[in-house]
Amino acid sequence: MAKTLNVAMIGYGFMGRAHSNAYRQVSQFFDLKYLPVLKVACARDPEKIQKFAENWGWESTETDWRKVVERKDVDAIDIGSPNNTHREIALAAAAAGKTILCEKPLAMNLAEASEMTEAVERAGVANFVWFNYRRVPAITLAKQIVDEGRLGRVFHYRAYYLQDWTISPDLPQGGQTLWRLDKDVAGSGVTGDLISHAVDTAIWLNGPVTKVVGDVETFIKERPLQDAPDEKKAVEIDDACQFLCRFANGSLGLFESTRYARGRKNKNGFEINGEHASIAFDLEDPHRLLFFDHNDPSHLQGWRSIHVTGFEHPYMKNWWVPGTTIGYEHTFINSLADFLKGLETGTPAGPTFRDALPTQAVCDAVLDSAEVGQWQMVVPV
Amino acid sequence: MAKTLNVAMIGYGFMGRAHSNAYRQVSQFFDLKYLPVLKVACARDPEKIQKFAENWGWESTETDWRKVVERKDVDAIDIGSPNNTHREIALAAAAAGKTILCEKPLAMNLAEASEMTEAVERAGVANFVWFNYRRVPAITLAKQIVDEGRLGRVFHYRAYYLQDWTISPDLPQGGQTLWRLDKDVAGSGVTGDLISHAVDTAIWLNGPVTKVVGDVETFIKERPLQDAPDEKKAVEIDDACQFLCRFANGSLGLFESTRYARGRKNKNGFEINGEHASIAFDLEDPHRLLFFDHNDPSHLQGWRSIHVTGFEHPYMKNWWVPGTTIGYEHTFINSLADFLKGLETGTPAGPTFRDALPTQAVCDAVLDSAEVGQWQMVVPV
Amino acid sequence: MAKTLNVAMIGYGFMGRAHSNAYRQVSQFFDLKYLPVLKVACARDPEKIQKFAENWGWESTETDWRKVVERKDVDAIDIGSPNNTHREIALAAAAAGKTILCEKPLAMNLAEASEMTEAVERAGVANFVWFNYRRVPAITLAKQIVDEGRLGRVFHYRAYYLQDWTISPDLPQGGQTLWRLDKDVAGSGVTGDLISHAVDTAIWLNGPVTKVVGDVETFIKERPLQDAPDEKKAVEIDDACQFLCRFANGSLGLFESTRYARGRKNKNGFEINGEHASIAFDLEDPHRLLFFDHNDPSHLQGWRSIHVTGFEHPYMKNWWVPGTTIGYEHTFINSLADFLKGLETGTPAGPTFRDALPTQAVCDAVLDSAEVGQWQMVVPV
Amino acid sequence: MAKTLNVAMIGYGFMGRAHSNAYRQVSQFFDLKYLPVLKVACARDPEKIQKFAENWGWESTETDWRKVVERKDVDAIDIGSPNNTHREIALAAAAAGKTILCEKPLAMNLAEASEMTEAVERAGVANFVWFNYRRVPAITLAKQIVDEGRLGRVFHYRAYYLQDWTISPDLPQGGQTLWRLDKDVAGSGVTGDLISHAVDTAIWLNGPVTKVVGDVETFIKERPLQDAPDEKKAVEIDDACQFLCRFANGSLGLFESTRYARGRKNKNGFEINGEHASIAFDLEDPHRLLFFDHNDPSHLQGWRSIHVTGFEHPYMKNWWVPGTTIGYEHTFINSLADFLKGLETGTPAGPTFRDALPTQAVCDAVLDSAEVGQWQMVVPV
Repeated sequence: MAKTLNVAMIGYGFMGRAHSNAYRQVSQFFDLKYLPVLKVACARDPEKIQKFAENWGWESTETDWRKVVERKDVDAIDIGSPNNTHREIALAAAAAGKTILCEKPLAMNLAEASEMTEAVERAGVANFVWFNYRRVPAITLAKQIVDEGRLGRVFHYRAYYLQDWTISPDLPQGGQTLWRLDKDVAGSGVTGDLISHAVDTAIWLNGPVTKVVGDVETFIKERPLQDAPDEKKAVEIDDACQFLCRFANGSLGLFESTRYARGRKNKNGFEINGEHASIAFDLEDPHRLLFFDHNDPSHLQGWRSIHVTGFEHPYMKNWWVPGTTIGYEHTFINSLADFLKGLETGTPAGPTFRDALPTQAVCDAVLDSAEVGQWQMVVPV
Repeated sequence: MAKTLNVAMIGYGFMGRAHSNAYRQVSQFFDLKYLPVLKVACARDPEKIQKFAENWGWESTETDWRKVVERKDVDAIDIGSPNNTHREIALAAAAAGKTILCEKPLAMNLAEASEMTEAVERAGVANFVWFNYRRVPAITLAKQIVDEGRLGRVFHYRAYYLQDWTISPDLPQGGQTLWRLDKDVAGSGVTGDLISHAVDTAIWLNGPVTKVVGDVETFIKERPLQDAPDEKKAVEIDDACQFLCRFANGSLGLFESTRYARGRKNKNGFEINGEHASIAFDLEDPHRLLFFDHNDPSHLQGWRSIHVTGFEHPYMKNWWVPGTTIGYEHTFINSLADFLKGLETGTPAGPTFRDALPTQAVCDAVLDSAEVGQWQMVVPV
Repeated sequence: MAKTLNVAMIGYGFMGRAHSNAYRQVSQFFDLKYLPVLKVACARDPEKIQKFAENWGWESTETDWRKVVERKDVDAIDIGSPNNTHREIALAAAAAGKTILCEKPLAMNLAEASEMTEAVERAGVANFVWFNYRRVPAITLAKQIVDEGRLGRVFHYRAYYLQDWTISPDLPQGGQTLWRLDKDVAGSGVTGDLISHAVDTAIWLNGPVTKVVGDVETFIKERPLQDAPDEKKAVEIDDACQFLCRFANGSLGLFESTRYARGRKNKNGFEINGEHASIAFDLEDPHRLLFFDHNDPSHLQGWRSIHVTGFEHPYMKNWWVPGTTIGYEHTFINSLADFLKGLETGTPAGPTFRDALPTQAVCDAVLDSAEVGQWQMVVPV
Repeated sequence: MAKTLNVAMIGYGFMGRAHSNAYRQVSQFFDLKYLPVLKVACARDPEKIQKFAENWGWESTETDWRKVVERKDVDAIDIGSPNNTHREIALAAAAAGKTILCEKPLAMNLAEASEMTEAVERAGVANFVWFNYRRVPAITLAKQIVDEGRLGRVFHYRAYYLQDWTISPDLPQGGQTLWRLDKDVAGSGVTGDLISHAVDTAIWLNGPVTKVVGDVETFIKERPLQDAPDEKKAVEIDDACQFLCRFANGSLGLFESTRYARGRKNKNGFEINGEHASIAFDLEDPHRLLFFDHNDPSHLQGWRSIHVTGFEHPYMKNWWVPGTTIGYEHTFINSLADFLKGLETGTPAGPTFRDALPTQAVCDAVLDSAEVGQWQMVVPV
């Protein structure tokens, strides 16, 4: 028999939209015991949150997240507000015994993330971090290929996350939609926003990272403020971040992220080179996975472009028919479906808060390394 | 102020799902005056339609489409049932003054399609055919490029629609999910199902087709019945269809469709070669449009792969952010949004029933040509 | 022990260069008993042929091909002059007992080609037609895959040969370098020049063609003369040619060639769809062969892009190292190597004149079909 | 009037073949004053060098390079022998007043390279390093685009050179054909062999590198000896090398090379991201250059794939016709043509020995950095 899960959404920005859409759609496409109910949406601006709630069908609104956490008719808190709010909300929500789904990066740094993890575990509440790209079907298929042992010993892992939307020096920083450029709110620039995705995927596919040496740069040194266009302020975030690393399995890693790669829009990809096979993925063609198998007859070896839209591919039997693609938002719906299934079965879907700690540790180590100009060991977590 | 549009859905198969999803989602992503209400879903099997209605949120169900047409609380009839039912339902719905949205192909043949067109026009009801691929953003962008005059004189138009799902001789025909292989129900095979999409797009982008010479083949001569697996019956549909043609603008055309192209899953594409520029598209990478511009500096000319995910691209500002893709189902939502906008503005969104007649005329001419082994003039409509 | 083969080259245009280069290079890369000697080059213009001979290392020159044919110190005649000269030279060379290598198309039409074939067979001289694309390593690999039986029953064969170099109406016709636009000299336009390549490959890979229906067009109706730029003359060649066909093995065929496909430079490709596997090739990426194998595990199926540069690939062990590509001219060197090996072993390398007859028959049937507007049976040869 | 350049080739391995081929062919395709004469080929093994000389048309042979350097009938020494011989031969050749062409890497390390550079400059002899990839037409076109100022401020430069031919632990090291795996002979592994190519291209396109932090790994710790298959020896070369760097123009760099990237055969590529435009290249598709121009109309922006085969592209008017590709060996012929043109005009074609010093400095710094685990400044040269 169906059970409802009353959800509260904190935040109404881009992620607020993506999550709301997932709550609205998941039950039509997945056969689940838990049915999410869009109970309350919360943000400081009453008009904006009202409009948001109406559009997405949230039953009510609040302007103070503390009230939301206290509401008895709320089972789960979804933290979609800026990074500097995650810790406080998560701690309160855990204390109130709520299920928690938190946008990535989990926290401003490893210390915060660890505190939050201890809190949810102490409280015994279900918890989840929205590293949605694990549920791109092609990436899930990559995980399956790795788990099937098709790669053999891994030699190389390389990853990139390239965008180009902040090249113009006229683009302002801060404010409602551009807080990702404000270090006080975002914690870091592309490291927390982009490369954290790449690192989460890497650790999931290739295991722990043991040491790193990184380099970051801020190309545009000052920008106007979104909320005060006539003022300029120094930019403190990292516009670009790249690092070398070693994995515990002995493979070499190489990561890069930037918002200054002209022509690259949302190019989040990776390649793994193993003894027997290699895998490559690029989010700009999210429905494809490239696979090279050295076990093929030698004259027929080549990189296969797998059109990951068949019934035999992860998640795809829940959607349309072979050959038809799904989009960006489906990664959130797939994630939610797995999370709800985890509630049902008692085996939590990852990444939990704890699963997200190694990523936070790597990001911290990279930023530290860039600051001191040295290799850094990654704190084991 | 918002107006509701009470919709009745006839049929609950693959298209029933795709349309239901569109009605559920369109209002979250497009700012529209008309809000669709999922009033009633209809199919002969009471249990199945009940389950379908519950899943998608249809308020009620019916098992006889005639009752649906008579219901006062229904404004619009969406015909998603098999092809051999389109005509009768459309005529009754027109007579009842209902708005009509009909799946493609519009009818079993041009005669039926013409009768239906006359009926809706006589009744003065809004009408629409779900040639959803016109609203793939990349195809809409192709139309925009054509309309901007960037191609100059057109020399060639080639199109293909290739699938591979019927190669196994064990696949049955007929029944609930495989009626597309039954000529009595589907009217034709790939001609009505696949090449009609290619022809609709072609006429939209390149104008009328004047004459054709075609060839069809049925590769697997008999198949078991879905509803009686021990019986075999001759297959009467066309498994493959290809034709040469001339367009009114003097360009040469070449079309092909099949369900026997191993490795091609839903490869629906085209290329237009003009004096100054060329365009190419392939639905297996639906977020990309290829464009070659002879006006570029000569040493820098090349086929551009436009990632059609920017705010400046058709429909995309209604979805997520640049670089993030949408999927198959969005073509239905985009179509519905335009249709509803058409109701609002009084300028109907195409293709209307009348807009779909030339496609039906071409398909008829191709099948005739294949039968008599001669070029056939296309009936001007 | 090595044997010399004294070669005479008739013609010094583009093909004269390509063949000369092959004679100069073949012995460095292939271990052959027959060593070609560049004995004499022949063309009407004494200055031009002199310059050509010096550049390529031809030992002597002639201005009358009849003298060449009579020379005792010549073993082989290579006919690289325009199409309307092939027949007469070949007949004389055969009568003189010379080995003959002839550029494609073999002749102006099937009647000529048959006469030439009978002549060489009666004379018992070795003969060869330069359909060089059979020796693109990727195409040879395609043949190998077909011969290994990996495709199963073939359903579809489609081919195209697209260029864009004659779009400008200012381009003249006739004369030394543009005789391909003059019907009296070339016999036909793209049919003989381009689609004949596609047809030769098709028949080699997929067997005989039984019937065709074709369409041709001349887009630019008149052009200036290269030798008299102030005069304009009607263009009589076909600028574009497309046809549908049936193969003897029951598969459907579809062919297209044009010089009006803006952005397509030398796009000569094909795709074969079989029951178990498919193959695709495109000369614009000549070092790659696409292969889809339905026998792969279902979740790992995809089009493989085989980088045809390995030691295990046809011809490649004779060139550089895996991963390094060869170019256009190597197809001629590979062809020559096979031809010379054929002399050595007594098993002639194809295509011989006789092997080229079916291609000529198809081209004739296509042009006839286009003229009468009817399907045509292909003359069996 | 033509002048001869009598060439002596030291070495007969893979590079001996590639260079010999260039000397044989350059005059047929380029109009040059200097005509290379294949005077003498030299290697220690008399039988092998004899066979080599016969195959390629070298007029004579020697088994001691010192004799070659002393020969009066030799104008130019081409050093194609293993890396550990470059210095001694170059110093002697310079002292003898010979023109010198040297395979890359120029030397075992910067100290040697500097000594060699001083020697050739003191002697006033023409000198050249075979970084052949500068003359891949697509890379030369990239240089042209950079020089046209189309990129604006550069933010990122990333490069890779990936192969997979040493993954098997059974592959031996040392000996005649596998000296690249022997540190005493090669100096380093992929750093000197592969990444040096990437660095040469990078400096040519993007200017000097100022500091680096690198990491190297030897995956297979011991291998049998080619000359004594029963013995195993520790492998001392770097199997993989990756580094981060900064360029003098402020851009961030990221380089990787390996022989353990399963499925990557000769994947030598780069991407440059500038403020206004980006460029990307991959040697596995050497005839293509990718270019993204932010100045295109916004709805039409996309990565162009330029088919670098037009008459307007670097070197291509010397080869065949638009649309036809050239191969690996042509990069050597193009290089030689430029070198000979430099002799003719007095403006030396690069890279000269001096031009190659910065690359050597970067490679040294990378290896140092990997050893000490620290960022290293690159010695300015």
